[in-house]
Order: sequence, then structure tokens, then C-alpha cells
Amino acid sequence: MWGGRFADGPSSIMREINASIPFDKKLWRQDIRASLAHVAMLADQKIVEAEDATKIVDGLNQIAEEYETGGVPEDLDLEDIHMHVEARLSEIIGPVAGRLHTARSRNDQVATDFRLWVREAMEMVDDALDALQKALVSRAEEHADTIMPGFTHLQSAQPVSLGHHLMAYYEMVRRDRSRFADARKRMNESPLGAAALAGTGFAIDRDKTASMLGFDNPTANSLDSVSDRDFALDYLMAATQCSLHLSRLAEEFVIWASQPFGFIKLPDSFSTGSSIMPQKRNPDAAELVRGHSGRIAGAMNALVMTMKGLPLAYSKDMQDDKPPVFEAHDLLGLSIAAMTGMIAEVEFSGNRMRALAESGFSTATDFADWLVREAKLPFREAHHVTGAVVSLAEEQGCGLADLTLEQYQAIDSRIDERVFDVLSVDASVASRSSYGGTAPDQVRVQIAKARQTLGLEN
Amino acid sequence: MWGGRFADGPSSIMREINASIPFDKKLWRQDIRASLAHVAMLADQKIVEAEDATKIVDGLNQIAEEYETGGVPEDLDLEDIHMHVEARLSEIIGPVAGRLHTARSRNDQVATDFRLWVREAMEMVDDALDALQKALVSRAEEHADTIMPGFTHLQSAQPVSLGHHLMAYYEMVRRDRSRFADARKRMNESPLGAAALAGTGFAIDRDKTASMLGFDNPTANSLDSVSDRDFALDYLMAATQCSLHLSRLAEEFVIWASQPFGFIKLPDSFSTGSSIMPQKRNPDAAELVRGHSGRIAGAMNALVMTMKGLPLAYSKDMQDDKPPVFEAHDLLGLSIAAMTGMIAEVEFSGNRMRALAESGFSTATDFADWLVREAKLPFREAHHVTGAVVSLAEEQGCGLADLTLEQYQAIDSRIDERVFDVLSVDASVASRSSYGGTAPDQVRVQIAKARQTLGLEN
Amino acid sequence: MWGGRFADGPSSIMREINASIPFDKKLWRQDIRASLAHVAMLADQKIVEAEDATKIVDGLNQIAEEYETGGVPEDLDLEDIHMHVEARLSEIIGPVAGRLHTARSRNDQVATDFRLWVREAMEMVDDALDALQKALVSRAEEHADTIMPGFTHLQSAQPVSLGHHLMAYYEMVRRDRSRFADARKRMNESPLGAAALAGTGFAIDRDKTASMLGFDNPTANSLDSVSDRDFALDYLMAATQCSLHLSRLAEEFVIWASQPFGFIKLPDSFSTGSSIMPQKRNPDAAELVRGHSGRIAGAMNALVMTMKGLPLAYSKDMQDDKPPVFEAHDLLGLSIAAMTGMIAEVEFSGNRMRALAESGFSTATDFADWLVREAKLPFREAHHVTGAVVSLAEEQGCGLADLTLEQYQAIDSRIDERVFDVLSVDASVASRSSYGGTAPDQVRVQIAKARQTLGLEN
Amino acid sequence: MWGGRFADGPSSIMREINASIPFDKKLWRQDIRASLAHVAMLADQKIVEAEDATKIVDGLNQIAEEYETGGVPEDLDLEDIHMHVEARLSEIIGPVAGRLHTARSRNDQVATDFRLWVREAMEMVDDALDALQKALVSRAEEHADTIMPGFTHLQSAQPVSLGHHLMAYYEMVRRDRSRFADARKRMNESPLGAAALAGTGFAIDRDKTASMLGFDNPTANSLDSVSDRDFALDYLMAATQCSLHLSRLAEEFVIWASQPFGFIKLPDSFSTGSSIMPQKRNPDAAELVRGHSGRIAGAMNALVMTMKGLPLAYSKDMQDDKPPVFEAHDLLGLSIAAMTGMIAEVEFSGNRMRALAESGFSTATDFADWLVREAKLPFREAHHVTGAVVSLAEEQGCGLADLTLEQYQAIDSRIDERVFDVLSVDASVASRSSYGGTAPDQVRVQIAKARQTLGLEN
Repeated sequence: MWGGRFADGPSSIMREINASIPFDKKLWRQDIRASLAHVAMLADQKIVEAEDATKIVDGLNQIAEEYETGGVPEDLDLEDIHMHVEARLSEIIGPVAGRLHTARSRNDQVATDFRLWVREAMEMVDDALDALQKALVSRAEEHADTIMPGFTHLQSAQPVSLGHHLMAYYEMVRRDRSRFADARKRMNESPLGAAALAGTGFAIDRDKTASMLGFDNPTANSLDSVSDRDFALDYLMAATQCSLHLSRLAEEFVIWASQPFGFIKLPDSFSTGSSIMPQKRNPDAAELVRGHSGRIAGAMNALVMTMKGLPLAYSKDMQDDKPPVFEAHDLLGLSIAAMTGMIAEVEFSGNRMRALAESGFSTATDFADWLVREAKLPFREAHHVTGAVVSLAEEQGCGLADLTLEQYQAIDSRIDERVFDVLSVDASVASRSSYGGTAPDQVRVQIAKARQTLGLEN
Repeated sequence: MWGGRFADGPSSIMREINASIPFDKKLWRQDIRASLAHVAMLADQKIVEAEDATKIVDGLNQIAEEYETGGVPEDLDLEDIHMHVEARLSEIIGPVAGRLHTARSRNDQVATDFRLWVREAMEMVDDALDALQKALVSRAEEHADTIMPGFTHLQSAQPVSLGHHLMAYYEMVRRDRSRFADARKRMNESPLGAAALAGTGFAIDRDKTASMLGFDNPTANSLDSVSDRDFALDYLMAATQCSLHLSRLAEEFVIWASQPFGFIKLPDSFSTGSSIMPQKRNPDAAELVRGHSGRIAGAMNALVMTMKGLPLAYSKDMQDDKPPVFEAHDLLGLSIAAMTGMIAEVEFSGNRMRALAESGFSTATDFADWLVREAKLPFREAHHVTGAVVSLAEEQGCGLADLTLEQYQAIDSRIDERVFDVLSVDASVASRSSYGGTAPDQVRVQIAKARQTLGLEN
Repeated sequence: MWGGRFADGPSSIMREINASIPFDKKLWRQDIRASLAHVAMLADQKIVEAEDATKIVDGLNQIAEEYETGGVPEDLDLEDIHMHVEARLSEIIGPVAGRLHTARSRNDQVATDFRLWVREAMEMVDDALDALQKALVSRAEEHADTIMPGFTHLQSAQPVSLGHHLMAYYEMVRRDRSRFADARKRMNESPLGAAALAGTGFAIDRDKTASMLGFDNPTANSLDSVSDRDFALDYLMAATQCSLHLSRLAEEFVIWASQPFGFIKLPDSFSTGSSIMPQKRNPDAAELVRGHSGRIAGAMNALVMTMKGLPLAYSKDMQDDKPPVFEAHDLLGLSIAAMTGMIAEVEFSGNRMRALAESGFSTATDFADWLVREAKLPFREAHHVTGAVVSLAEEQGCGLADLTLEQYQAIDSRIDERVFDVLSVDASVASRSSYGGTAPDQVRVQIAKARQTLGLEN
Repeated sequence: MWGGRFADGPSSIMREINASIPFDKKLWRQDIRASLAHVAMLADQKIVEAEDATKIVDGLNQIAEEYETGGVPEDLDLEDIHMHVEARLSEIIGPVAGRLHTARSRNDQVATDFRLWVREAMEMVDDALDALQKALVSRAEEHADTIMPGFTHLQSAQPVSLGHHLMAYYEMVRRDRSRFADARKRMNESPLGAAALAGTGFAIDRDKTASMLGFDNPTANSLDSVSDRDFALDYLMAATQCSLHLSRLAEEFVIWASQPFGFIKLPDSFSTGSSIMPQKRNPDAAELVRGHSGRIAGAMNALVMTMKGLPLAYSKDMQDDKPPVFEAHDLLGLSIAAMTGMIAEVEFSGNRMRALAESGFSTATDFADWLVREAKLPFREAHHVTGAVVSLAEEQGCGLADLTLEQYQAIDSRIDERVFDVLSVDASVASRSSYGGTAPDQVRVQIAKARQTLGLEN
């Protein structure tokens, strides 16, 4: 197999290992956009004559049209997208095409193209996360009063509002968006004009190209500009964090969709089934979202390791910066879209959630807190009394709310009828009204804030 | 070996796998600080009586003194730092100690303690990076006019200023600092009061504790507050980026210190030698900095994988959040300190650098650019002429600056005496005066900006 | 904080970053053992006089006793364990101690010591995995006939034998052991005598030291011997695979211990509870085993990245080979021990498992297979008939085994009374008797093989 | 962009995230091969009638021809390669196609296909590494007597044979091959017949299909068979180790090709240059090999993380097992081929290597060893004398071999004329004749062994 592929000897091996066009053709829009800005600046600065610049602009626009309609050709001998555009430009407008490369090198060109691409990718992720947040907020609002068991260690611990649970993910995504926003701001400097590594002697105006390309300013050091890829790592690290958050929600969906839990019914569109086993609804999409977190983190790792110990300035190792970013971006985009779709369409079984929340004396903590708070018992005593009450309920085979006031007072006379305010799961949830707590009123406060942040009407 | 250790059966295994005190005792200052804030708030809110609060405060202060002087004891049966403090407080002040745990749980307590620790770690890194930047700027200033070969692919490409090269690292560190700053801002919310997972029914004031602990505000969702560790990952990811940058400088030091390069002599304090081989100066510190990037990235990976797919809220897996952060922080601190020391004390051999920069027709690009820029040749023609000139110099066994004007004009009559302005490495470097370029004047502009940013006099 | 620590300047930074004694003191037994072999060989070869050799042996034995009883001192100025032993030997026996270092260098010494340590670690893991397999086989035997739902996508798919499920882990561990065995065999070559990097001119006998240290043979290339750490990576990679397997069982335990599943009750010794919530049994140990897989993989990653791109021969980066291995070994040892303990003591709820296995028409596949196999229906037709039967059962609110033969024959007359042989979960499980299938008889065949492999009586 | 792609709503998202055909079509040969074995067995066992089996075989063969000539179509609605083949088979032979799926499920089918693919990949790597070893041995033989500086810390330490240096990589590759061989042996068990997860009630013969597919035996546990992917991780881990070794040689090539080192001239076929800078030969292929180690390790990490914590049996996350393996295999194949080509064609500059080896008193260790070995000085004294001699040579500006016997004896009278036997780099190298040492005779011994192992004539 390999033997055959490399039968032509070294040249065929080199052509294949060296060429980046199979993946970097994704950069064609950015490459042309950057060239258009560059040539406009060269013309403004009288480095290239207006007439030549016009020819170059027309040629680049023609190439853009060709690629848009016919796709980017893949000629391994032309190595990368820059040379593809360059070669085609020469075919179209002749030797004047060479003027485009005045005061520029492939090193600053690829750094510029890739930054433009990553910046756009960040914007796409931000949009997608905005949609995910909106879906979360919408379902949270619908379920602010739905009671579910809150888990620690996957053990039912205290009842919580389903809306509150969903809003936890809203918060995670909020931080994810801020990560991408921070990264975008940090990377929004134009490397164009750094040339091969040392800057140039041509009287270029880097502010102008920076501005035309939407950058805040030009980079301050030409060596750094062509050597670093920390902006790509910033993307991958933010993507990894985001994907980890999605993996947690995906895990919950997988567990919740299991028969013993039965908390949710995933929409048909995101499940697969079996013609002969109607009860089986495989949560494929959730599993894939969970699995993708591995590949996204793997992509991040790839670039971390590739960049380790590279001397300045450009080394060819850095050509391996793009495949991990492209792959992670595809996987993250799919993951967010799938999760947004699932959130929007999942059916929650409030009854099943409530039933489980009500089992297992889940309000024992509320009772103990009540003893401390209202009956002013010391902690240790409160725990002792709670233990006795739970034992009694266990003996009677009933819940805490089912015991009578007499039974309570027989255990401790300081207990009065107000205790029933916290013994039901509804009362428990309603009582946890500290800021950020699970009380539905609190949840609605946060939902209102979120709606405002997201630009939704309240 | 293991057999012996676990001879007592399950209890000894569980004690060892479960206990976090061997590492989380690092959090003792944060734990006591957070408890002091919590009890002050409880007293203000009349949840705990003033008298009790005073006893608790005194007890906590006594524990702090004990730990400061005698260290934190390690009792595996008391599992973690929170229970160590709690148990000791009970010994000192008796049952009233229990009041401290009103409206709080270990889940929000550890989240608060660890955030405080990570925030401080970020501040320590920022200070250390400030010192590194100052060292870089100082040496860059000293060597703005020192000429060295600029490399791509570790091949000598164009002459650059050593000061410019050092300032490239200034830029990387600038972005590293901004990463830690962004992360610090994002994580600076107080989880205290989230309780076990659902908030609390006590009338606590989370704004008050947040403010006392230097947080910008309380977190908005109690489930999220006790479940997420993305702030720790933010630290580890920023540390990884920073460490990668250091690994590159370390690699350069290792290569530059080799006999064939001979660009630098590392200070005795950061090298090891051989009693019988005086020429051998092993760049141990640089190698260790380079190596540590692997362990720091490994620590980051550890936490990424640990967090994957954990359902809300707290799971015990999350106890593994601390060792990677503690390890990475130690390694990063040492790496930055070692690199700062090396930068400050390394001897640069300007002569050797210049000699190499001057070899190999390194100003051929300048010549070609000059032909385009000044003699207005088209690119392709300029390349052709340059090739002819380089061939002639090679034949003559001399540098480009050593050819005569006649020889140049014999090749192309459009060349005039101004060409010599770009043929020497000094002229080449001086000519690259585009913004961010390597011309010493440009380098000094960036140094001046850096000095201002760092609060140094210009 | 750091500022204070490094107040002494470069020397204190270097001492701390350079010293490996805080972790490599773990190698003291190996270091002394290798030295004893080396000096015995030197004496045999007349390179060192017998009398000197005796002094060295006595001195080394004395050091071993000192370290055994008093621990290894930590003097950062003596950098590593080799220099600690060397310095102490000089104190005890004077200048003749120097003879020990004839024809040896720290480079081959550390390579030898670390190999000995890793080899022993592999043996410890193998012993621990043997115990885990025995626990698995024992519980599998007990539960060969216990029926549980077999899951795909965490959806109940087909009933299986719990013994079969446990034996799946036996198989995984079998492969894990073979990985460690392969790695042990591959690394069992002695680097001692490779000296600094080039071998030596002394007439040493490397076969002799190899044999004394239990190595199969000396390594074949001195440069490789001191440069490579792939044996340590082999350990870490095998540990990662093993830890992944444990993480899956741990995940199952966490899910199975949840109230909705209720498949298991974890032993008190490996759970933690709540004084006031008796129903809550947190599966801490299982969660920690699952979490540790992240840290073990992180350790593996650390060494992978550290070794990337290091030129031959020894570089100081390689000092970072040990902490990841030591950490992973501790975590893996604890994980295996905890999992072995849990397997041995967990209570399985056969009733709950069976109840879930019986719900949801889990034998629908068996019915469809029966139609193809016994009634000779084509697949498509069989699926159609199965769909109709399942619909009927759903309507009737009963299981497949509860329908009457008449009802079956009304749907398809080719069905006869033999169909009931596969409709119950017991029948279903019993029928899957293909090699490696879940039929209890098949499970017992595999258990018998496993018992033989493990040296247990059948 | 994404918005557009997913305009059709959930179904388009699900189709894209769920479909594996874009990558698993690589498995088409394995899928058809496994089906041919399966149907042959079904016919032998009379589970399928001979006539039907013949139709199925003919149909599968026709599909193989179609795919061979026309490629595999990509229909996202048909999800994966298995359904593509199945659907096409139905088109060709009608409903009888369904018989093929008797006693088989997609779960054991994909496990079988992927094992076959990975096994073949391992064989391809083994072949490629065989070629690399041959290239190494051939160049090592040519350069057994070529002297180069041996480095530690990239500092010239002791002279070594270039052949010896190359043979160090032969040893690494030897271990890499043994890793793939071990993994191949461990994974060579047939999962076919495990069915969905529980085995089957059909009277299949798993030994027969195992044998037909070249497996040593069927797997012993059906749950394990469809759940585990440790064989794929074994591949990725062995690939990572191999790639790390290649990254080290690549790093050496990059450094050796730099102007200051000048040890090698890389062949044109594996370098890129500059039309105007003839001295610049960028070692692109070596850099790409070095860089690829990051992506290969990233792929390994991806699968490690994806498999973490998955409950048995099949989960959809496991669909993400293939892209990392496919990517790593492509990158590793290219890396080995490129390195083999470079090794075969690189020009070594023996003169430059020798010149550097001779500088810097690189035989000082030899001299010290000689004093101990021949003149019987104690170590400490030998070091003292060596220091004095090196100082003298430094003063005189000459090498150790250039001092006179008188000068030596003036420093220590126990030195005699035999000392000159070790002072030259040739003598030094020749003297290190311990087993595995760098003496050319020793190197030739190892080369002879290697040639024998590789099946080359000696």
C-alpha cells in the first residue's frame, strides 16, 4: 500500500508530507481577503502603481469567484493555498502578479490568513453558544418549578429545580463565551507586514492593512508575529473547556435517558432505535457529543506538543497548526448544534423526577437546618434529632412529611407546626432562596438577568 | 510492598485513596480566611450570636498561629484540611465550633478555598512574569544594536537585532500575562453560600462574604458553583501556554550554548560543568525549563480528562483537581525564576553572532528588495539579478558587500551606489524599519513602550 | 512567597530546580543494588582490588541499613540519590569509595536504577492485577446465573449473566497484564557499562552485571542506553490502558449504586455516608478510581511531551522522567487495590437486576432470532412479526412470555410452543451459548479456564 | 456558515454528527472480507443454505469490484460502511441479502473490521520500519569509522563513531517493532460472533471464521469483544513511541543541518531552498516529522479520553475510535518514509564532525581513565592530574595529543608513552570497546547482528 504510493521515490514522499493544500485550502477566503488589503495599501503607499493594483484586485476577485463556484483545486506541487492563488493570479494577469508579493512573505501571509480564520471561527462559536444559551434559558423558564433530585456522587442529595439545573449550564456557557471573547481580543492584531521574520524596508502602512482586515492594531514584533501560534491554542483551549461542559450535560442525558432513571425522552431526531425493541432509544447524539470532547482535547494536545521547544522564527513544524484547529472546530460546531437541538426538543418527565426527589428522605437536611434556624438547636443536637426522625419514618415506611406533629414533638418538643414548611420537596426547594440558590423565585431572577444579557424580552 | 501497606484490609486502602490532606493542607490559609469571612457574615446577619462568633474567630486565629509555626498535622482519618480545622476548632472552643458550619457545606467551602488559592497563584505568576519582562527589556535595550542571524527552519535567513529577538519573548509574556489576567477576572466570583449544591434557607448575605474575600460578586448558580473547576483549568491552560513560550527560549539557549553556535555563555549559577572538561558547560537549568513544559501540559491534561463527563453536582473525582494545579504551579514558578535569572546573567557573544550573520549572503533578500524598491525592477527580474550576484560572490569567495559597483553594474546597469546601503548586515537591519520590524530604532520604540507598560522610567 | 524563597538569588533557584533528591530518593534500594553488582564485577575483572571491593560492599551495606532505618536524608546540594550514596560512602570508607565509579557514570547508573525500579513496579502491578482477577472470577462464579440487563448506549438491550459481565473485566485485565509482561521483557536489558554515553575502555564484563541484576542481557548500544526512556513510557502507557479499564468499571459502580438503578450496595468500607441521610451512600472510592485515570493519563502525557525532540544522548530534561512514573504508580496501585476490595465486598441485588432485565421486551431479539432459526422465516419477515408481537404485548401491558401460544399463532401460524424456550430472560441467556456468549454454561467454561490460568483449583 | 448548514433543523445536524461513512469507508475491504468469512461459515453450519450463500458471495464480490474501481459512495443517510454494503447487496441480490446478518450485529462487525484494519496497519508499519532499519544499518556500516562528537546536553562530551550514533536509532526502532509485534499478537483474536453484546443462539462456529480471517482464536467474552478498543490504543501508543524516536532524529537533523553545525547536507528531495539564498536549505521534511509527533500523540490522547468511563457494552462514543487511528497511521507512514529517505540520501560531513570532535579536549575523560586504568592512580588524583594537563594545553593553545611526553611527565611522572594511545579521538573511540561501546569494532559487531536479524547478507 505505502510501497505503491511512494514508488516514485523521495519526490513522492516529500510532495505528500510537505503539501498543506489538502487542508489549508480552507483558508482561501482569508488569503484573498488579506491580499486585497495588502495590495490596496501598497497602492496607497505608491509602492505598487494604481494600474497594477487594479489588475491584481481584478485577478483576485476572479479567483474568488472561481473558487466559490468550482472549489479550490488541489495541486500538491503548488504546496499550499498561497501558491495556488499566486500561480493562478500569474496565469490570469501575467508577471504583474509578482507585485503583490512586495513587502510580504509567506510567513506573515499564513499568520494573517490563519488569524482571520480563527477569529471567524470564534465568532461562529459565539453565535452557536448564544443559541444554546437561549435554548437553556427557555427550557429553564418552563421548568423553574419542576422538582428533580439534586445529585452529589450521583446520589440523590437534595431536591432542586430543574430550571436551576439547566441554568447551571447557562453559567458554564457564559464563561465559555467569555473565554472565546478574551481570546478574540488578545489575538486581534495584524501580523501582516512582519514579512519573513524581520519586517521590511518598504514604506508600508501596517495600520492601514490592520484596519482594513478588522484588526485592532498591527503586532509589535515581527519575529513573534510569524513564530507564535498561541492564538490557535487559545481557540483550542477554549474549545476544550466548552466541550468538557457539553460532555457533562451529554453524560447526564445518557444517564437520564436510561430506563431506571427515565427522566427524559430524547427527541427522535437525536436518537436511534430498533425496529423490534420499541423501548430502546439510543442517545447517539449525546454520546457523540461526549465522545467528541476526547477528540477536541486531543487536537489541543497535538498543537501543544508540536509547539514545544521550537526555536524562533518560523519552523515547518508549525504547518501542523491547522489540522487540529479545523478538526476541533468542526467537532465543536456539531456538538453545540446537537446539544442545542436536544435541549430544545427533549421531553422532561417531571413526574418521574419528582417521584425520585421525594424518595429517600431528601429533605432531611432541610429539617436539620430548620432545627438550627428556627428552633435554635445547636448543630450536633439537630443532627441527633434528625437521625431519630428519619429512623422513625423508615420504621413507619413513610416520608418525613407524612409523620404527624405529635410524632415530631415526641422526639423533640421544640418542634412546632412550622416544620411542615420545609418537609415537602416543594417547600425545601422554595426555602433555598439565598442568592444563586434553587428556590424558583431565585431561579427566575437569574433567568431574567440571562434574558436581558441575551437580548431577549422579559 | 503494596501488600504490606494494605494489610489492614479495605479500611487502610480507603483511608489512603480517600484522604486529601497530604496535598490539600496547602489550602489552610485560604480555609481559615474563608471561615473568618463566613462567621463574620453569620454574626452580622444574626444567624450566629456575636459571642459565639468571637469564640470562633479567636479559635480560628489560634489555629492559624499553630499551623504557621508548627505546620499542618496530617491525620488521614480527618481526610481533608476542612475537617482538620473543624476538629481542632472543636477541641479549642467546644461545641460552639459547630455554629461555623451553619449555611455552609464542604462543597462550597472547598470551591471557595481553592479559588482563593488559584487566584493568589495567578497573582504570583503575574509578579514573576513582570520580573521576567523587565529582565528581557533590560537586555534587549543593551543589545538593540547587536546583530545576530535571524533564523527560519534554524537556517540563517536574515540578520536581525538581538534586542528584537529578546523583545519577541517580551510580547509572548505580555500575552501570557493577559491570559492569567483574563482568567483571574473570570473566576473572581464567590461560591461561598452555594452550600452543598442548592443554596440555603438561612438568611445569608453572599455579597458580604464575597466582598470580604476580594471577590467581585457571588456566583449566580449554586449547582454550577460546587461542580465546576474551569477556573483551575484556566490556570493550567494559561500555565501551559506560558511554559511553551519558555520552552522555546530554553531550546534556543541550549542550541546557542553549544560549541558550534557559541552565541552565549550561560552563567555558572545556571549551568553545571565537569572538573576535567572545562569547555563543557551543561545548560541544565534551560533543559529543565524545557522539560517542565511536558509536566505542566501533563498536569493540564490530567484535569481535562478528570472533568470529562462528570454529572452535576459534586463528584469525588473532583478531589483530583488540586495535585495537578499545585504541581504545575511549582514547576512554572521555578521555570520563570530560572529563566529570569538566566536572561539577567547570560553573556551574549555579539562577535560570534555577527560573524554568523555575515556569512551566507544573508542580505540577498535586502538586495532583491532594493532592486524592486529603488531600481524598480519587477520581482521576477530582481530575483534573476540577485541569483547572478550571489553566484558571482560565491565564485569570488566574498560577501555581497565586497563586490564592487562595477561588478554589480556589469550584471545590471540599473544598480547604483546606493545599493551598498543595504548590503551590510547593519544596513540590512537598519533598513527594516516598518512598524514592529528589526531596525534598532523600531526596537527602541517598542522597548520604550514596554518600559512604560512595566512602570519603568524611560 | 516565591520572592522570599528565591531571595538568595540564582543559586537558590538553581538548587531547587536542579535537585532531584526529593523524588529520586525512591531509587535508593536500586542504586545500592546496582552498585553492589558493579563492584563485584570490577573485583572479578581485577579492575578493583578485592580488598577495596570488600570495603565498598561493606560501606554500601551499611548505607542500606542506615536508609532502611533512618530514611534517606535530603541535601539539595548533593542533588540526587547517586551523590547522596557516593558522599556517604566516602565518609564511611574514605577515598577508596572513588573506585566504585570506575567504568561507570551517572548516566548509565540512573538508567540502571530506574529500570530496576520500573521492573519492580511492573511486578507489583502484575501481582495486584492477579488479585483483582481472582476477585472477579470468584464473584463471577457466584453470579454466573444471576440475570442482569445487558446495556448498549446505557439502554437495556438483552439480558446477560452478571458473571459474564464481570468476566469481561477479567479479559481486559488479562490483556493489561500481558501489556506489562511484554514491556517487562522488552526493557529487561542492562544499561550498566554504557558509561557516560560511549562505553568504556576498562575490561568490564557487562554480561556479569546484567545477570547479577536479573537482566536478560546487556544493552547493545551505549548511546541508546543512556538516552532512551521508552521503558518508562511503556509502563505509563500500560498503566493508562489499565486505568481506563478500571475507570469503566468504576463508572458502572457509580451508576449501579444510584437509587434509580439500585443494582449494588457498595461496602461501607468504600463509601461515605451522611449521618442524617441514611439512604445516601457516596461511592467515593469508585469515583476516585475513575478520576485517577485522568491523572495517570496526564502523567503519561507529561513524559511523552518531555521526550519529544531531544537530541542524543542524555539531556537534563530527562530528569523529569521519574515524577510522572512515581505518581502514576501510586495512583494505579491504589486504584487496583480499591477496585479489588470493592469487587470482593460489593453486594449485588440480583432481584433488582432481574426486574429491570425483564422489563422492556428485552427478549424481542431472541424471539426474532427464533423465528429465523427455528421457524425459518426470512429476516425481514421475522422483524415484521416481532414488531406485531411486541405491539400486542404493549397493548396488553404484559411481557412477551405472558402472551399465549394462541395469541402468537394468531399473528403467525408458524410459531409453535418451543418459542417459550427463548421468551424468558433465563431462556434468552441460556440460549446464547455460542463460544464466548452469555449462557451460564459458556460463562462457566471461561471461568474454569480463568481459574486454571490463575492457578486456582477448579 | 453553520447556520446555513443546519438550516434543515435537527435532522441535518443529526445526519452529520451521526454518520461515520466519511471516515469508516476506509474499512470497506475489511467489511467485505469479514462478511465473506461469515457467510461461508453460515453455509458450512447449514444456518444459511448453500444457494443463498453463493448469491451473497457473488454479490459481495461484485460490490468489492465496484468500490475498487469507482470508490465508495458517501450517503450520510446510510450512516456507515456496513449499511452501505448491506444496502447495495440488497439492491443486487434482493431480500436474501438479509441472511448475511444472521447471528451477527453491527457491533461485532465493526469490531472485526476495525481489528482487521489495525492489524494490517501494524504490518505496514513493520515493513516500513524494516526499511528504515536497513537504511540505518547501511549508513552505519559506511560510517563505522567516522568520528563525530558525542553530545550530552548538546555539549560535546566524548568522541563517538557516527555509525554507533546511527545504530542507536536502529535499537530504538527494534523496540518499536517489538511493540507493534506484541500488540499484533495480543489483538489477534476474532470478535466475530459476539453479536450485539451477548453472543448468539445460532450454532455458529467462531473458530472457523477466526481462522479464515487469520485470527489466532475467537475472543472469550462477547461483552468485552464489542466494548473494548484497547487494540486501537495499543496501535496509537506504539505509534507515539515510534514517532517520539523519529522526532529525536529529526531534531538532530535540523540542528546538524544548521550552518554552525554543518554536519550534514540534506538531499534536495527533502529540503526546500530559496532562489536567492543558495546557502539556505530548509530541512522541511525533518521538521514535519518532528511536528507530526505532536499530532500522533494528540490522536492517542483523543482515544484515551474518549474511552474514559464508558460503561459496557457498546456506546456511540466509540465511533470516535477511528479518525485518530486513521490520522495517526497516515502521519506515521509519511514520517517513517521521509526519515528512511533522508537517512538513505543525507550527506554526512565527516570532516566537520571530526573537527568539532577534536576541539575542546574531548579526550580528557580518556586520559583520566587511562591514569586510573594503566597508571593505577586513584580517581581523585587522576582528576587532579587531568585538570593540570588540560590547563597546560589550554595555555599552550593546543590539544591534549599535541603536548609532549615530557610535558606530561613533568605533571606526573607515572605517565608513559602509552598515554598517546588514548589522546587522539580515533584512539579514544577505538578504546571504548566494552560491549555496546563506540569502538568501531564493537559497532561492526552490532551491525553484523543487525544484518542477520534483518535477513541481509553479511
